[in-house]
Amino acid sequence: MAVAVKPIAQLLPVDGIRLATACAGIKTMSKDDLLLVEICETATTVAIFTQNQFSAAPVTLAKQHLSQSGSRYLLINSGNANAGTGTIGMNAAVSCCAAVADQASCLVEQVIPFSTGVIGEYLPVEKISAAVPNLLQKLQADYWLAAARAIMTTDTVAKGLSRQFQWQGKSVTITGIAKGSGMICPNMATMLAYIATDMAIPKDILQRVLQSAADKSFNRISVDGDTSTNDACVLIATGKSGVRCNADDAELLGVFRKALDEVCVELAQWIIRDGEGATKFITVDVQSGRTEQECLQAAYTIAHSPLVKTAFFASDPNWGRILAALGRAGIKDLDLDQIEIYLGTLCIVKGGARAPDYDEPKATAAMAQDEIHLTVHLNLGSASAKIWTNDLSYEYVRINAAYRS
Amino acid sequence: MAVAVKPIAQLLPVDGIRLATACAGIKTMSKDDLLLVEICETATTVAIFTQNQFSAAPVTLAKQHLSQSGSRYLLINSGNANAGTGTIGMNAAVSCCAAVADQASCLVEQVIPFSTGVIGEYLPVEKISAAVPNLLQKLQADYWLAAARAIMTTDTVAKGLSRQFQWQGKSVTITGIAKGSGMICPNMATMLAYIATDMAIPKDILQRVLQSAADKSFNRISVDGDTSTNDACVLIATGKSGVRCNADDAELLGVFRKALDEVCVELAQWIIRDGEGATKFITVDVQSGRTEQECLQAAYTIAHSPLVKTAFFASDPNWGRILAALGRAGIKDLDLDQIEIYLGTLCIVKGGARAPDYDEPKATAAMAQDEIHLTVHLNLGSASAKIWTNDLSYEYVRINAAYRS
Repeated sequence: MAVAVKPIAQLLPVDGIRLATACAGIKTMSKDDLLLVEICETATTVAIFTQNQFSAAPVTLAKQHLSQSGSRYLLINSGNANAGTGTIGMNAAVSCCAAVADQASCLVEQVIPFSTGVIGEYLPVEKISAAVPNLLQKLQADYWLAAARAIMTTDTVAKGLSRQFQWQGKSVTITGIAKGSGMICPNMATMLAYIATDMAIPKDILQRVLQSAADKSFNRISVDGDTSTNDACVLIATGKSGVRCNADDAELLGVFRKALDEVCVELAQWIIRDGEGATKFITVDVQSGRTEQECLQAAYTIAHSPLVKTAFFASDPNWGRILAALGRAGIKDLDLDQIEIYLGTLCIVKGGARAPDYDEPKATAAMAQDEIHLTVHLNLGSASAKIWTNDLSYEYVRINAAYRS
Repeated sequence: MAVAVKPIAQLLPVDGIRLATACAGIKTMSKDDLLLVEICETATTVAIFTQNQFSAAPVTLAKQHLSQSGSRYLLINSGNANAGTGTIGMNAAVSCCAAVADQASCLVEQVIPFSTGVIGEYLPVEKISAAVPNLLQKLQADYWLAAARAIMTTDTVAKGLSRQFQWQGKSVTITGIAKGSGMICPNMATMLAYIATDMAIPKDILQRVLQSAADKSFNRISVDGDTSTNDACVLIATGKSGVRCNADDAELLGVFRKALDEVCVELAQWIIRDGEGATKFITVDVQSGRTEQECLQAAYTIAHSPLVKTAFFASDPNWGRILAALGRAGIKDLDLDQIEIYLGTLCIVKGGARAPDYDEPKATAAMAQDEIHLTVHLNLGSASAKIWTNDLSYEYVRINAAYRS
């Protein structure tokens, strides 16, 4: 199940990036499960990672490698998270990087590892190493679609998009792919995103724009962002377009950020649309709080409530469950008599109770949509925050009760 | 579904308490939905309520009434929570209390209202008022079993038990009934418990022992305690046994507290066993943390994780999900390499990774039990905490997707 998920339209190559995929048979032989991304020497690479204290071996190693040397390769496997695997797992991650470094004649620190899949199984290092020579031979620029497919786990569709803009007669491209956590409220499954541009951007600025884009996208889905063991988002700037953005170039930076934000928001929403068992795509939009943090807190409490999620699944306009979630969101001096709740443009709660002109058939019809915009007015201040989530269905239970088998 | 839930064995009358039930047809005509509890004039009554900021009208009114005058009646209805009903709801609660006060010739403040059921529907005051004369006529001492049935909502069994102890040749009785929140991780459904004893205890001590008992029982189930709009727990001491406990009577107080704690723990566990869609009863026992708070935080993060819950449902010893939950529990300086996890006596995680002698068939067999004792050793200190929870099944989704229909 998935909500209005579309196939990938077009993924434009990014000059300076080549890709290759292979089936190493990590979990099954039915799909490619390895992706190698080659990064040109002039590129700058930054990344952000899960905040979970229990981070996987590849996350620990990727952070080390990124801080040591200019990155030349990303090696990504699906089917196995290499998490909860102790020293053996760390050695496995190092061995896989070494296999690439040996064959490609680069430093082991120039290879950045990523893994996604089941936790607690040992990574089949030999299968991965054996696939490396072939991967290096097959590298090509126009291979993003296969790359998007190779990183999928429980995703039902591959996710990726490109944006282009013109700057002083030159064309700048941004292409990104992602795999979903697949989870409604994930605490383990992995979100991975790889985004590349042919613009040149200094490393500190690149890191900042990536963090900012993630805070508006990947950190605004009901995947707290800090809950998985393997989450990672990588941004590469190859500089091959000849367009260079310096720190003081506010206009170009603005144009780039806008395009990057669009790519990240679209990928993040795609992940939610393709969430495990999702039948509804829900925007939770909390307005007129005192601080953005307060609005986010309210939005996440609503989005994480199993009772709210099952009501969405049942198309039941059970506003009482939304009010109850707000009541335990820990918002200081919450004035319930001020709360208003809308489904789209339909007001269902006013003054902390059922709206005077509440109409159950209309509310049920609004809840029966595939895409629902839930707006909560706290009427306490002028801050707001918006997150995206999905519903809790039988299918979610089925998938997660069967995930390891 | 429910896990090893037993029928009520025996509910002993408590001298000074009389009860009556009726079917007022609040939601259906198929079961009694009203309970009136008469409390003798000499009794002391205390209660604790939900911490949810969005508390229902009866909760607000019950707190006022309890603070104003000696309580003489509890009026409890199932089928309607009278929550999210604004001024109309408050007036409805007052009217119901007034109906009892008028007929029973007591003050309206001496009637304490409680409601449980769907949120956001208006309470049918006339149906309830019309049933009051009959309720007052039918009051009798040996009617606790019918009382336990009348307060049920989605519970599959009535819940209640009695304890007795001897003190200086006299017999002291404690009888308690409860209805479940029915929820795995409730944010709305109601837990109600009514406990009476024929001992005499000063009000301040009675309040303290109730809070202490609840902190070890109702506040240790995966019902944060502070998340429902209507949760309430009432303790009445009628004094009719002739046994009086004064502040300095440590021995008697100790005996009483032990019996009260047992009643509360048993009722709380019963609620979890009868949780909506529950197929497993799980004790989450976090040991060797630095503080009890830290252990509780870890235990609740595990107990609330949908991924851990679905793994329990599937009898899947997916310890990676438990580690991932611990990793995001916000425990300062968590040392993953120190963590050990046991299913019963079977060690499945040691040193933050799969135990060296881990055996999947044995672990799966341990997970296939109806009752599972999960122990997590943080190895950071000497505090510990234990909570009870259940799993996340298809049935949970079905019940909560259909609850209002």
